[in-house]
Amino acid sequence: MRHQLLLCMLVFTTLLIAEKSVVAQTKTVAERLGYPADTRLVIVHADDLGMSHSINEATIKAFSSGLVNSGSIMMPCSWVPEIAAYARANPQADLGLHLTLTSEWQKYRWRPLLAGGSVQSLLDADGYLYLTESEAASHLNVLEAEKEIRAQIERATKLGIRPTHLDSHMGTLYQTRELFEMFVRVARENKLPIRVAKDMSGRMPFLSQILKPEDILIEGIVSIEPSVTAEGWANFYIDELKKLPPGVTELVIHIAYDDAEMKAVTFEHPNWGAAWRQRDFDFFTSDAFRKVLAESHIKLITYRDLQKLQYGM
Amino acid sequence: MRHQLLLCMLVFTTLLIAEKSVVAQTKTVAERLGYPADTRLVIVHADDLGMSHSINEATIKAFSSGLVNSGSIMMPCSWVPEIAAYARANPQADLGLHLTLTSEWQKYRWRPLLAGGSVQSLLDADGYLYLTESEAASHLNVLEAEKEIRAQIERATKLGIRPTHLDSHMGTLYQTRELFEMFVRVARENKLPIRVAKDMSGRMPFLSQILKPEDILIEGIVSIEPSVTAEGWANFYIDELKKLPPGVTELVIHIAYDDAEMKAVTFEHPNWGAAWRQRDFDFFTSDAFRKVLAESHIKLITYRDLQKLQYGM
Repeated sequence: MRHQLLLCMLVFTTLLIAEKSVVAQTKTVAERLGYPADTRLVIVHADDLGMSHSINEATIKAFSSGLVNSGSIMMPCSWVPEIAAYARANPQADLGLHLTLTSEWQKYRWRPLLAGGSVQSLLDADGYLYLTESEAASHLNVLEAEKEIRAQIERATKLGIRPTHLDSHMGTLYQTRELFEMFVRVARENKLPIRVAKDMSGRMPFLSQILKPEDILIEGIVSIEPSVTAEGWANFYIDELKKLPPGVTELVIHIAYDDAEMKAVTFEHPNWGAAWRQRDFDFFTSDAFRKVLAESHIKLITYRDLQKLQYGM
Repeated sequence: MRHQLLLCMLVFTTLLIAEKSVVAQTKTVAERLGYPADTRLVIVHADDLGMSHSINEATIKAFSSGLVNSGSIMMPCSWVPEIAAYARANPQADLGLHLTLTSEWQKYRWRPLLAGGSVQSLLDADGYLYLTESEAASHLNVLEAEKEIRAQIERATKLGIRPTHLDSHMGTLYQTRELFEMFVRVARENKLPIRVAKDMSGRMPFLSQILKPEDILIEGIVSIEPSVTAEGWANFYIDELKKLPPGVTELVIHIAYDDAEMKAVTFEHPNWGAAWRQRDFDFFTSDAFRKVLAESHIKLITYRDLQKLQYGM
């Protein structure tokens, strides 16, 4: 009798879970977050935290405006203690890790957290991480990359950062199927959502084979490109925001001041350079941005919301 | 007959070498450099290169004045590529290595070149080098410190830096007899003179037991202290320069701009802070400094001169 009761409860529970899972899969992310299906939801995400003081200072200032509401940290960089102190003092901040396997500037470079011998395939001839994502992806041993990104997650935890999500600096972890597969596996283990959107499947044909139904896939990513002129900066974003589809879009932005440090970091590299980042700071802390959000009925959400949805945290 | 001739030549050569060595030891460093014994010789040495862009930029500017003529580089820091490019473009520059076993600021920190496991004793709880020289010296295993400083020398060579001398950031390698002994041994092996002065023997009673007669010992080191006010800055240096003893003195200075980056690096630490470093920049590129050098008949020399003397390079 007792066994039959237990069996009965087990079957019932299994049915309940299955039911919930089916519901989860048929509802949109917006609906699962409690919004009508046609709501336009945006994460305003600043990349590259910890890379320089200029980035940290400008992004923290932008966070305080409430208009930039998410960001991710590059653990191998020397300005991490500054942003880690911010993370500890602002535990509600939506901070993830910008997993770093490249070091792209000329005058200012960084090494992996793990040393030479154990991650040799991640290093260029000068002992730094590779300059580009394609060089990195073509040289690296996936097991060594996995060791390094695990070390980055571990160090974040050690410094009191409680990441809400993961993404990949310069997209290195999206370059090959093997890398992306490993990235997704490490993210799931750590119960962290990753930056991944439906509109990535064109250049990542393996996407649908790796993601599971329970992985959250946002609609799209908006990121400004070098072809946009300085004068057209605000209009580019305003146009993109006005024509957003329903669902979740991530605006991937790069914020810093156009100061001596940032000019030297991005020396001879106007793309994603100091002036570029100042323009992002200016727009994303402006009344024009606030206005277009209100007029287009766009709601801001964070990766913390997606983490809660996917992992119940 | 042939053997006798060879033997005779050998004896003669040995006598010549011995004679030269005795002469070397009885002459002062100034005389050995070809100056009258009472000449006042000065090395104007900027520390901490590679630590920040502000330091690199201000020091390179000061080098161009000709009044600051030596400096040393911190290999674990991220701005090393900028100063390494300068070193490659200016092979005559007198650049040494500021061997680094501490990471002293709050918001901006660095790790050793070697990783965690292999140099565990060099790391604080956050995985960075210790904040102070005394913490570093009391925790570190001398063998691990040796591995790390050898890695720093090796990396410099890899980046095309040809160091002319070695010193120690925050003096960590002068803290104990064991560390200093190891430091001297590594320096001799690499044929590099080190920063060591007669006036150090008070706080380093083991000095005379470790140095050999052929090691070059300069007269003294002048370094400004926190007790000097901003208003008294130039006068401190002018007074010190006017009363210099004959022989070689090293002015150990810290040059940077009082800008946003340097203010953030030295956050809440006025000693050796951004304004301090700007004052050093201002004085050591000033006409007042040029004037006191001329009026006091002070000649500038570099570590390259001392390296030539000690190792014939």
